[in-house]
Amino acid sequence: MNPRPVSPRPLRIALLGCGSVGTQVARLLDRDAEELARRVGAPLELVGIAVRDLGADRGLDLDPALFTTDALALVTRGDLDVVIELIGGVDRPRELVLAALEAGASVVTGNKALLAADGATIFEAAAKAERDVAYEAAVAGAIPIIGPLRESLAGDRVRRVLGIVNGTTNYILDQMTTLGQSFEEALAEAQRLGYAEADPTADVEGYDAAAKAAILASLAFHTRVTIEDVHCEGITGVRPADIVSARQMGCVVKLLAICEQYDTDSGPAVGVRVHPAMIRDSHPLASVRGAFNAVFVEAEAAGELMFYGAGAGGVQTASAVLGDLVSVARNRARDDVGPGETSHAQVELLPVGRATTRYHLAIDVEDRAGVLAVIAAEFARFGVSIQNLRQEGHGSDATLVIVTHEASDEALSATVDVLEGLEVVRAISSVMRVEGGF
Amino acid sequence: MNPRPVSPRPLRIALLGCGSVGTQVARLLDRDAEELARRVGAPLELVGIAVRDLGADRGLDLDPALFTTDALALVTRGDLDVVIELIGGVDRPRELVLAALEAGASVVTGNKALLAADGATIFEAAAKAERDVAYEAAVAGAIPIIGPLRESLAGDRVRRVLGIVNGTTNYILDQMTTLGQSFEEALAEAQRLGYAEADPTADVEGYDAAAKAAILASLAFHTRVTIEDVHCEGITGVRPADIVSARQMGCVVKLLAICEQYDTDSGPAVGVRVHPAMIRDSHPLASVRGAFNAVFVEAEAAGELMFYGAGAGGVQTASAVLGDLVSVARNRARDDVGPGETSHAQVELLPVGRATTRYHLAIDVEDRAGVLAVIAAEFARFGVSIQNLRQEGHGSDATLVIVTHEASDEALSATVDVLEGLEVVRAISSVMRVEGGF
Repeated sequence: MNPRPVSPRPLRIALLGCGSVGTQVARLLDRDAEELARRVGAPLELVGIAVRDLGADRGLDLDPALFTTDALALVTRGDLDVVIELIGGVDRPRELVLAALEAGASVVTGNKALLAADGATIFEAAAKAERDVAYEAAVAGAIPIIGPLRESLAGDRVRRVLGIVNGTTNYILDQMTTLGQSFEEALAEAQRLGYAEADPTADVEGYDAAAKAAILASLAFHTRVTIEDVHCEGITGVRPADIVSARQMGCVVKLLAICEQYDTDSGPAVGVRVHPAMIRDSHPLASVRGAFNAVFVEAEAAGELMFYGAGAGGVQTASAVLGDLVSVARNRARDDVGPGETSHAQVELLPVGRATTRYHLAIDVEDRAGVLAVIAAEFARFGVSIQNLRQEGHGSDATLVIVTHEASDEALSATVDVLEGLEVVRAISSVMRVEGGF
Repeated sequence: MNPRPVSPRPLRIALLGCGSVGTQVARLLDRDAEELARRVGAPLELVGIAVRDLGADRGLDLDPALFTTDALALVTRGDLDVVIELIGGVDRPRELVLAALEAGASVVTGNKALLAADGATIFEAAAKAERDVAYEAAVAGAIPIIGPLRESLAGDRVRRVLGIVNGTTNYILDQMTTLGQSFEEALAEAQRLGYAEADPTADVEGYDAAAKAAILASLAFHTRVTIEDVHCEGITGVRPADIVSARQMGCVVKLLAICEQYDTDSGPAVGVRVHPAMIRDSHPLASVRGAFNAVFVEAEAAGELMFYGAGAGGVQTASAVLGDLVSVARNRARDDVGPGETSHAQVELLPVGRATTRYHLAIDVEDRAGVLAVIAAEFARFGVSIQNLRQEGHGSDATLVIVTHEASDEALSATVDVLEGLEVVRAISSVMRVEGGF
């Protein structure tokens, strides 16, 4: 328990990208140099920062000679211990990360797009080079979720992961819920406050959450899932009527990243999907407000766990990057390497049509005798069992609010298609999945 | 990422103690042998189980020859890779753990009492033997909190940890809040349901939470804290009046384990305390119900994080034990060792008298002109500033409800002592700290 001796050899660190996260990482590396050296067991020396624009003012008090626009030359200089990749995108960072590993450096990255698109290539290269790749910052900012899934739950069986992993969409849905705003109004407000980008597509269409879902599912189920495998629906179709319907059922609407293990006739299978869903008010995820993130894990032995915190922001993500840096630098100081990724399970991926969940439907109908029987018959025809039915209003305003038992996506879709063609149905005003138990 | 080759050498595991957690560990080791072998990279072989009573029926389908009453002979047999200690207590497990380390085994333990009493001895022995000691199960059952504090937040500065780390007391306070029960009624109910032991002292007096607080503070602040350093108040003095007062303020009463870093004139200092406190309804800890646990962490860069889950129970704690087992077994398979404990900070421990927080007081007073001035003068005399004051009732039933600004424990105690002696004060019906912002 004595202070661990600090090795005379400093570990050489390079930073790729110096935006909001990179700037914070550089600042903290400098400010906390002494403390980090103690935790690692060796001093950390920032030897280069690759940027696009040498002239930008980042408010950092660093030697200008550290900055370069030639990232590839930096990562291949041959004497680096750790490369921190904070560029974003897929092709260019892949090239740089692979070059860094081949040149003998471990890698810390916050790049969810790269890992969700082609993590296998990165992890294979790391195994071959006997170096670490750490990526806590890629999912849910500073919230430790990669570490717990990799390490703490390594002796358990994860059954389901439900994540609120995109702060922009959670903020928008929260505004729609608490203020009754439309999607468009809430989005405009989020853009005004800087919670949503000028082009919000990646967030509101669910692509950002889908990349994180692929990473979480790969870890949780020890298998390989890419973003191509994730069924993805965003929140652009969520209407005030859905929010109101959810409220009447004691639920809130959240954009969820859902990773589930199923037992099928041919063995275990994994389904990964991102879509808006209703969850009951008493579920721990329901109280995740504003731009916060949370990941809810159901494991066989551990039961229900939840990890909660700020999902994004430069300084929060920098905390995750530095945590990873300490881990991989400790390994480099001892010429060691962590356990690496395991994808031994190679579980079958279930298409979304076969995923089962509960559904909420609000159906505007003609209020006359026999309507309910006609509609119930269609549900029965496709094997979708009704758990709960409530009729609201009367006359021309009658609405049937239905919650089903667990049904497959394809059975539900087929039912909805037929219902829409029925004469007695005026409109289906809301169809939404219900998750997290009801 | 091909399946990692499974080493031909099995790792030899011994289990000390076979109560509810140990039985689950033995069962899962057997049932999940193949999966665990893949995750570790080597098969795990349970070679011995030390118990007190060879005749007890544990419902395990294991070779009776595995069981022994001679734990010391088991841990010193010389060929063990990992010893899992689940005995409880301090002196006997310390002897066994030290013997196991000296004989070359790494240790997984869920023993909070041992680590809180004398973790330094254990961690020094582990460093000397170049073996791991892992203890995720010692705090908050299956909730990964040790790992995140050790690894994920290693690059950040933790400012404060607030934990609900005892399920029994959380259940009792929850019953008092939701059903209006007295402490005695809620305790009896908890005992009937098996949430509280026949002798509930360790839980209701806060000792169990204090042991966990010592462990969390040591990790969070990279220093050494023992249970002796923890100021501890249990919940036996919490009255229905406190619960009602909390409710009127939009708060709930929780037993909190609080670890804080202060900046004092002589540098950083750490204060660790366990006591009932009011927290506002909107704080994430307020919604932790029943026997659940949660640990709320405030870090400089990461911001606010919360870790939530089932706090106890044999199978949940077994999940944490197995997660640790996979980690240390991976290291043993590679003849490697993890980073070990760091206590380099050696921060000063602040006595509770100097800890600062807000206070809630309910003071029954005579309702006559000048009373408020008399009382306010006493607060002012001790430098305790009043943030909020509300007078309830009138005539002989008048009650002043006061919330102070941050004040030191000693200043508040001195104020209360003087108030109790004032002629205009009939009684002080509630004094409780207010935590987590207000």
